[in-house]
Amino acid sequence: MKQSIKKDKQPKTKQPIVAIIMGSKSDSETMMPAKETLESFGVNCEWKILSAHRTPDEALEFAATAHEKGIQVIIAAAGGAAHLAGVLAAKTSLPVIGVPIKSKSLNGLDSLLSMVQMPGGVPVATVAIDGATNAALLALRMLGLKYPDIMKRMNSYREEMRKKVLESNQ
Amino acid sequence: MKQSIKKDKQPKTKQPIVAIIMGSKSDSETMMPAKETLESFGVNCEWKILSAHRTPDEALEFAATAHEKGIQVIIAAAGGAAHLAGVLAAKTSLPVIGVPIKSKSLNGLDSLLSMVQMPGGVPVATVAIDGATNAALLALRMLGLKYPDIMKRMNSYREEMRKKVLESNQ
Amino acid sequence: MKQSIKKDKQPKTKQPIVAIIMGSKSDSETMMPAKETLESFGVNCEWKILSAHRTPDEALEFAATAHEKGIQVIIAAAGGAAHLAGVLAAKTSLPVIGVPIKSKSLNGLDSLLSMVQMPGGVPVATVAIDGATNAALLALRMLGLKYPDIMKRMNSYREEMRKKVLESNQ
Amino acid sequence: MKQSIKKDKQPKTKQPIVAIIMGSKSDSETMMPAKETLESFGVNCEWKILSAHRTPDEALEFAATAHEKGIQVIIAAAGGAAHLAGVLAAKTSLPVIGVPIKSKSLNGLDSLLSMVQMPGGVPVATVAIDGATNAALLALRMLGLKYPDIMKRMNSYREEMRKKVLESNQ
Amino acid sequence: MKQSIKKDKQPKTKQPIVAIIMGSKSDSETMMPAKETLESFGVNCEWKILSAHRTPDEALEFAATAHEKGIQVIIAAAGGAAHLAGVLAAKTSLPVIGVPIKSKSLNGLDSLLSMVQMPGGVPVATVAIDGATNAALLALRMLGLKYPDIMKRMNSYREEMRKKVLESNQ
Amino acid sequence: MKQSIKKDKQPKTKQPIVAIIMGSKSDSETMMPAKETLESFGVNCEWKILSAHRTPDEALEFAATAHEKGIQVIIAAAGGAAHLAGVLAAKTSLPVIGVPIKSKSLNGLDSLLSMVQMPGGVPVATVAIDGATNAALLALRMLGLKYPDIMKRMNSYREEMRKKVLESNQ
Amino acid sequence: MKQSIKKDKQPKTKQPIVAIIMGSKSDSETMMPAKETLESFGVNCEWKILSAHRTPDEALEFAATAHEKGIQVIIAAAGGAAHLAGVLAAKTSLPVIGVPIKSKSLNGLDSLLSMVQMPGGVPVATVAIDGATNAALLALRMLGLKYPDIMKRMNSYREEMRKKVLESNQ
Amino acid sequence: MKQSIKKDKQPKTKQPIVAIIMGSKSDSETMMPAKETLESFGVNCEWKILSAHRTPDEALEFAATAHEKGIQVIIAAAGGAAHLAGVLAAKTSLPVIGVPIKSKSLNGLDSLLSMVQMPGGVPVATVAIDGATNAALLALRMLGLKYPDIMKRMNSYREEMRKKVLESNQ
Repeated sequence: MKQSIKKDKQPKTKQPIVAIIMGSKSDSETMMPAKETLESFGVNCEWKILSAHRTPDEALEFAATAHEKGIQVIIAAAGGAAHLAGVLAAKTSLPVIGVPIKSKSLNGLDSLLSMVQMPGGVPVATVAIDGATNAALLALRMLGLKYPDIMKRMNSYREEMRKKVLESNQ
Repeated sequence: MKQSIKKDKQPKTKQPIVAIIMGSKSDSETMMPAKETLESFGVNCEWKILSAHRTPDEALEFAATAHEKGIQVIIAAAGGAAHLAGVLAAKTSLPVIGVPIKSKSLNGLDSLLSMVQMPGGVPVATVAIDGATNAALLALRMLGLKYPDIMKRMNSYREEMRKKVLESNQ
Repeated sequence: MKQSIKKDKQPKTKQPIVAIIMGSKSDSETMMPAKETLESFGVNCEWKILSAHRTPDEALEFAATAHEKGIQVIIAAAGGAAHLAGVLAAKTSLPVIGVPIKSKSLNGLDSLLSMVQMPGGVPVATVAIDGATNAALLALRMLGLKYPDIMKRMNSYREEMRKKVLESNQ
Repeated sequence: MKQSIKKDKQPKTKQPIVAIIMGSKSDSETMMPAKETLESFGVNCEWKILSAHRTPDEALEFAATAHEKGIQVIIAAAGGAAHLAGVLAAKTSLPVIGVPIKSKSLNGLDSLLSMVQMPGGVPVATVAIDGATNAALLALRMLGLKYPDIMKRMNSYREEMRKKVLESNQ
Repeated sequence: MKQSIKKDKQPKTKQPIVAIIMGSKSDSETMMPAKETLESFGVNCEWKILSAHRTPDEALEFAATAHEKGIQVIIAAAGGAAHLAGVLAAKTSLPVIGVPIKSKSLNGLDSLLSMVQMPGGVPVATVAIDGATNAALLALRMLGLKYPDIMKRMNSYREEMRKKVLESNQ
Repeated sequence: MKQSIKKDKQPKTKQPIVAIIMGSKSDSETMMPAKETLESFGVNCEWKILSAHRTPDEALEFAATAHEKGIQVIIAAAGGAAHLAGVLAAKTSLPVIGVPIKSKSLNGLDSLLSMVQMPGGVPVATVAIDGATNAALLALRMLGLKYPDIMKRMNSYREEMRKKVLESNQ
Repeated sequence: MKQSIKKDKQPKTKQPIVAIIMGSKSDSETMMPAKETLESFGVNCEWKILSAHRTPDEALEFAATAHEKGIQVIIAAAGGAAHLAGVLAAKTSLPVIGVPIKSKSLNGLDSLLSMVQMPGGVPVATVAIDGATNAALLALRMLGLKYPDIMKRMNSYREEMRKKVLESNQ
Repeated sequence: MKQSIKKDKQPKTKQPIVAIIMGSKSDSETMMPAKETLESFGVNCEWKILSAHRTPDEALEFAATAHEKGIQVIIAAAGGAAHLAGVLAAKTSLPVIGVPIKSKSLNGLDSLLSMVQMPGGVPVATVAIDGATNAALLALRMLGLKYPDIMKRMNSYREEMRKKVLESNQ
């Protein structure tokens, strides 16, 4: 096994292995840091608008075929009655990360509860409201289980954060 | 038109024209009053467990074909991250009524927000937490638009409620 | 029956068959998309300010006579202690749709709970906070039970939403 | 003025001058302390079930004629989408006190917000969830403005409370 | 009794019979409509900044002597941990109306709960968050029990509101 | 200074230096662990029922004279509109610790916000809902600034907690 | 790479590759389904009580060395001010799954927000309140990225859930 | 002892005896009034950015050595999943004051609950959301137990607040 891992310490950069799915085009700006964070780790992503309510068939189809198309982690962002992440998770065995988008009236509390309170059987890995960066970092930690280089970079990333905080004291 | 309405003042009782869909078998007891209320108005219903997360394909298939099978209103009950009503509404043009089921930790606030805060385009007619009776009454009010006998009975139903309250004062 | 439905596949456009009732003139802007959505489906609406607290008699009178004046669905919008929809529903057997208006202090949570948590007997079909468009779409789904053309247009509407989302990916 | 007040230092005990209106018979037990508190001050009350939703006409009629029948303060108790107090206040110039009843799912937060968040123009004097005793005490404080004996008793009541607390330390 | 009431149908306008107490000078703008509403009914008010936390002695002293100085109703406005109304109510038998001021972080939910959830024995008549106008109207309804002219004006006030709403439809 | 501290490394055990004040006798059971925790550190406490609403004068008097009577920290427990801690803090320069008591309807959220959201100028050191033990531990940490023996015992207390957790793994 | 994966399609069953860390022994019963779910997939886990507050050093030390000891995913359960998951995530690059435990007063809303609202840089994959089973299923989905057998079993697991729901309709 | 206290009625001004620790540089502006308040009492503070998540080791190390470096009270400010105060309190026997910072989506309710709902054993003295001034005043009240001059100044501070409020009425 060690041998094979050497050959495959990081994903081939061209093929997207993370998908970022948003329920609405208006979520793009909020989710851009997720894309940028993934790319800063050398991980490409598929970037797609798909809605559990406006394109239910395409959303389910996407989830059902994501694995065979090379996707390893799905990040799903939606606001209000945020069903996207749960519906995707229902059609795949890949880990699905949910980003509750801050909503206009209830500030994202609705989005958060709609995502995190999943019934037993189908989990959604929920991060903070508008937590695009953390969604990407969580995807990378999952990928780090398989690609040692990603885990190494995550170690460096944490170290850099630490230094940055300490420097801010000077 | 008046002529035809005379012939069809109420639905033929054998065929179910309302579907009650529950996300989990444990919702049955809470939803039974919906079935009983419909039947007390002479309306039969289809009674089914279907989950947006455990049986996504069957749930969508059900919604997509409900109209052609004679269903006119769908009542969907679910708790927690309650996606069922929204997902069904995405695949039909029939009105979908959502019943947020009281959840174990957050008392149904999660279920309520997951149902009612639907994004523009796909409405869910949400009633109170555990509001099974009202879900049925709402379905009957909708059917009353088409079947004059149901509207008449609703008038009587409201009158009976009134009398019952007034009698409770004696 | 089929024959009559052919003759009456859609409502005669002049007569309003949906009423949009607002608790305050300040709700007008929020509710305008409801009117526009109805009209885009060829459905005219009555547009009225009536308050459960400032014009209780007129509000009740409106609900009591709405059906005989040709109204088939009532949309009621109000904020804060939003009693309008419930009070109207008490005086009619027509379906009443409630739109909780976002309030100044509590962002519409008060409006939502005041509408959706109706006691058994008198249902209000509640949509999202400020959900004017969905209120209209819900009214249209109800009308679609009776007018096949409206249901057909709803099918197209859903298909157009789908296409629009898919196109946003190009 | 003083002279007249001497003659009328307290209400004639037979005639009810406070009305306790409940939205549902199930609120009776919760509201009983209101009745008992009023009676312990020598004030009789009218005790009535009237619902904003099940008996809207009777509720409005009651409020509209309460003053001429001798009622001086109305206490209204309701749970969930608690519209009763607001609707009564819309039809009278008497002060209306609202008691939000603890609800099954949301513990009375819905009842509280439905009562207290009244729009400008029609106030409801809201007390705590299930606060029947305080509703009566508030009514008595209002009556104390007119009947000096009631205010005297309120002074004694407060003094007794004080003593009781101090004694509990011994 | 009737005779005396004739002589005293409204309060002598110079002497303030309502006190508006605010916890902080920053509440002044929010509370101004209370003053204006009272004055539009010919009722003068005492306008004072007193804090339960910064001037506890003066606050208690004010409440303890308010009645003998001619005050008949106290309106108390405060935000956050809003103790003012409760503390004043503890030291007087007059009715105390609480206005929860919208707070910076929690939008007044804290102010509301701090006011309305009073323990048995000491009631605060709570109105909506920032509900200055309604606080005044509630005070006037209380005074209307004693001064028939105020009740008459309240009847007119309600009638004017009604007309204004109806006119807004033209 | 060191010398003097040697002489006075811990308080003389007979005299109470912490006061536990409860708004209601029903809070006693919840607060007993505070007393026990203090005593297990060799610190005696005064145990008293005093209410901001039922005994406002005695409550203020207590706070105003607490320091001169030897009290160094005040723990105040109350539920609902929990004004006790804030009102005590207004009349003393001693640190006041607030324990929000779990309330019947809102589970202590009202108590918590009523205590913690104090306006600038008068702080209340709020601990968790029903957090009697932590209130005592917080008082002891404050006393530890002055009495080295108490801080030493706190070090041991933390070490014992640590061991207990680690042992629970065996 | 394919070759190596063949050899290592599932983890060697003896060595624990998932750690279940609980903040308190009282969380054990709630978390047992996580252990059982993992074991039903042939995955062993380390089961440990460690507290962010009572054993901070041991908690950090555990996280810092988890990876080198063979742990691949950490599940952390805690209630109230639930800091455990966040603190562990700060000291490892492994994915950390947080299970908010239902708390006594606030039903787990405090636990949920304390876990999910992590600041940018350190993600916690939060599941539902008391969502032990889903925490395990999420861990398994992550492991499925690396161990094809686990993903296969997850596919079967989802298929079995589906069948069970469908059978419940017969 | 009295003698020694005379010599040491206030802390030597150069050495910081209070530490203000913030989880993020962006909290600086909110926390500045804490620093200013302390300094206005002649108390210097250490001002530091340290994060429970980005610099866990440094944060724990700081808490563990704070006492021996002369710090007597720690003020910790953080937002969202605000673990900083709890984690610091775990590693010291000094009193730790928590300031929940208003967060972007949930307005600080998450920060508040993450701080105040600490489990038994490790208390955090929580003040209001963004309550920097009160955090400092609370620290000063604690220090006042030891340094009589600080308590005297606190008495004056309270008296000045009082005067300022009373003057605002002129």
